[in-house]
Amino acid sequence: MNDMTDSSWLRRPVPAACLDALRAVVGDRLSTAQAVREHHGHDESPYPDVLPDAVIFARTTEEVAAVARICNEHRVPIVAYGAGSSLEGHLLPVQGGITLDFSGMNAVLAVHAEDFTATVQAGVTRKQLNEHLRDSGLFFPVDPGADASLGGMAATRASGTNAVRYGTMRENVLSLTVVTADGRVLRTARRAPKSSAGYDLTRIFVGSEGTLGIITEVTVKLYPQPEAVSAAVCNFPTLGDAVDSVIEIMQAGVPIARVEFMDEHAVRSVNRYSKLELRETPLLLFEFHGSAAGVQEQAASVQAIVHDHGGMDFEWANRPEDRSRLWAARHNAYFAGLQLRPGCRASTTDVCVPISALADCVRETARDLADAPFPTTIVGHVGDGNFHVLMLLDPDSQEEWDISERINHDLVRRAIAADGTCTGEHGVGLHKMGFLLEEHGEDALALMRSLKHAFDPNNILNPGKIFAW
Amino acid sequence: MNDMTDSSWLRRPVPAACLDALRAVVGDRLSTAQAVREHHGHDESPYPDVLPDAVIFARTTEEVAAVARICNEHRVPIVAYGAGSSLEGHLLPVQGGITLDFSGMNAVLAVHAEDFTATVQAGVTRKQLNEHLRDSGLFFPVDPGADASLGGMAATRASGTNAVRYGTMRENVLSLTVVTADGRVLRTARRAPKSSAGYDLTRIFVGSEGTLGIITEVTVKLYPQPEAVSAAVCNFPTLGDAVDSVIEIMQAGVPIARVEFMDEHAVRSVNRYSKLELRETPLLLFEFHGSAAGVQEQAASVQAIVHDHGGMDFEWANRPEDRSRLWAARHNAYFAGLQLRPGCRASTTDVCVPISALADCVRETARDLADAPFPTTIVGHVGDGNFHVLMLLDPDSQEEWDISERINHDLVRRAIAADGTCTGEHGVGLHKMGFLLEEHGEDALALMRSLKHAFDPNNILNPGKIFAW
Repeated sequence: MNDMTDSSWLRRPVPAACLDALRAVVGDRLSTAQAVREHHGHDESPYPDVLPDAVIFARTTEEVAAVARICNEHRVPIVAYGAGSSLEGHLLPVQGGITLDFSGMNAVLAVHAEDFTATVQAGVTRKQLNEHLRDSGLFFPVDPGADASLGGMAATRASGTNAVRYGTMRENVLSLTVVTADGRVLRTARRAPKSSAGYDLTRIFVGSEGTLGIITEVTVKLYPQPEAVSAAVCNFPTLGDAVDSVIEIMQAGVPIARVEFMDEHAVRSVNRYSKLELRETPLLLFEFHGSAAGVQEQAASVQAIVHDHGGMDFEWANRPEDRSRLWAARHNAYFAGLQLRPGCRASTTDVCVPISALADCVRETARDLADAPFPTTIVGHVGDGNFHVLMLLDPDSQEEWDISERINHDLVRRAIAADGTCTGEHGVGLHKMGFLLEEHGEDALALMRSLKHAFDPNNILNPGKIFAW
Repeated sequence: MNDMTDSSWLRRPVPAACLDALRAVVGDRLSTAQAVREHHGHDESPYPDVLPDAVIFARTTEEVAAVARICNEHRVPIVAYGAGSSLEGHLLPVQGGITLDFSGMNAVLAVHAEDFTATVQAGVTRKQLNEHLRDSGLFFPVDPGADASLGGMAATRASGTNAVRYGTMRENVLSLTVVTADGRVLRTARRAPKSSAGYDLTRIFVGSEGTLGIITEVTVKLYPQPEAVSAAVCNFPTLGDAVDSVIEIMQAGVPIARVEFMDEHAVRSVNRYSKLELRETPLLLFEFHGSAAGVQEQAASVQAIVHDHGGMDFEWANRPEDRSRLWAARHNAYFAGLQLRPGCRASTTDVCVPISALADCVRETARDLADAPFPTTIVGHVGDGNFHVLMLLDPDSQEEWDISERINHDLVRRAIAADGTCTGEHGVGLHKMGFLLEEHGEDALALMRSLKHAFDPNNILNPGKIFAW
């Protein structure tokens, strides 16, 4: 599809002595079987497969530390692998080496309900954690579309539909256990709600995409399950009306929990995939959290605002099962989109802009998409200024890939011109690397590189990501 | 008082060529006058004065960059100086060199009301910013006791009474303009509400206490002024009852805006200093933000909880002028404490613990204080698990200093044993340096050091802080 992962020339040798040393630590949980390597050779990005030389199924932090020491000695790359749901190629071992699979490190280690914190192994997924919390009166809000692992979510600074109210992984990770490139184990912070005790190691690793250290445990913030929850769908005549409504809602200070946008194509895909009967116009999905009275008050404020922007009547989803169905449909929008064109590969955009620039940015993008020779959908966490275009490409068509890349480039330039970012929540991986210079400038990028050099001098941690190096 | 700042042997030479080169850039805004050096030779910490060799009154980011280039070439230390309100000795130039005074860089550069952001020069103070915002319907919530500069607040990861609802500087700084040790200028992030585009440079500099770069501009988040605000005071028979109430309020998920604790000694000092007539028992100060109905609902929930813990009736402060008077009194608690013993110097503790450990931690500390031979007060942002002991010492008594240090050490050990931190919001400075090893461990501290080496290889940025080096 493109040559970014035609990187066979970049692969580093994995000496037999290294594999022997690793086997001495992990035994038969090191696999070089073709099927296992293939399973770990792709993610949800549009790139062709790139296989690791071997896969290790990790069990403990100490074991990960031993693996790091051995790989560091032999200069062999390590890629940490959670649920495999990256959209940007993070998990492709472009320089070969070892993929460390965390699916077996999936224990919930502690829930401190009084302190609103949970500590989990990095392989625990967000749904697993919330299932574990179900009877505690608490929940963990960060919800990317996929059922990602908490380690992967921390590594990509993930967010999702709840971020407008509860923040992203940046705000919701309290502490991490990290293995360094040379195999030391450290905790980045203690469990106090805030601290000014030195550099913010936690946030250095959150969003570092496995390039600065290997996250083995995650302590996150939890929240009380709201006393009352209600959700509603509101259709709009145009995309601009929907986006303008959101801007006004935010400015009115309504403490809305979720507000998600879908264009008519996204609605159509979701209707088909999730057997819903939503009206196929641009729409907003709202969710309100609070006391019973508070939720009513929020809903009334929002209804008044959307009415002024041509919004139609709210369709309420008040029963928990109806709400779950609606949000499951939203979370599956990526997979629903894929079904619009069987056999396709999806390329995803992820810009995020200051909210004052959002309406123009979405409108201009929609104009670009009108001419595209492939199906597209737009969905967005518009309360955060973040939206995604899903472009459903013929995997064999270089022309479609080139057009999609041009659309993405134009979109990113538009976002950066508006003081926005090329990636609001998916991360850089391979796909957004080319934009970092434009977004951050040479001096900021040089500082990021000096941090990478300081933390991983042999460049063994997910090499070739964030920076091509 | 102690020998931590008897550091004359550490002072580095400031060559005449360096001063000449600096004068060529800033002209007569470089001063070596004794009075100016003395003014910049102390902060609100208990340490004796340490004078810089010269003071530069900065005007622009570019000028700061030129100063950094010259100082870096000559290996001359630079200390950035905002409002001078550090409690921990951050501002003392223990290795000599240049103090960069930011009081002249006090322009509000932009308010983007639609995006809820403001960009200011580093010398703008929190009160100045809120005065500027008064008619915009927005406000900036982070409020350490002093009227600190935004640059200093970012550098120490400050918080204050609103943090329980609105977060600290960690959550509220969106982007910084930073001058590096070698005089490059960079922006750490764009104005998008969230981003996953590479390492989190913003949060690397937030809390770095001037040791990694010089903050010259700060972009912060703003919030809508709440539709309704009400404040109340509630007295309790014991300190434990007050703290237990807060824990239950947090667990009930009441979205309280502020909840501040004072022990009876703090109340007495505040009554005297601010001419109030609060009942002199342990008390909580509450503030509720929201819609009119929401505020009533929050207050009713809180009243029910405090009643169960022996709390007396609420005394309301609903008129804006009464509320302002109450909160001004709370913000002046440090200065009020000083007046309990004229001529004293204060030593302040700043532990923060998981909220489940708060009641025991405060109770045990109060027992230690009962035997102290000097006056003390306890105040706390108890919704965050953070509280301060103010110890009012005879500046000429080594014995009192030693006792106060022992109390602080015992308190920090208690906090660390409870998975807490030695500093919730004041920062490390000189006073908390000795605890970092115990709090973070050798490996985490080594990583912090490697970051410092990477960003400031000549150790010219506020040297001798965070790490003794």
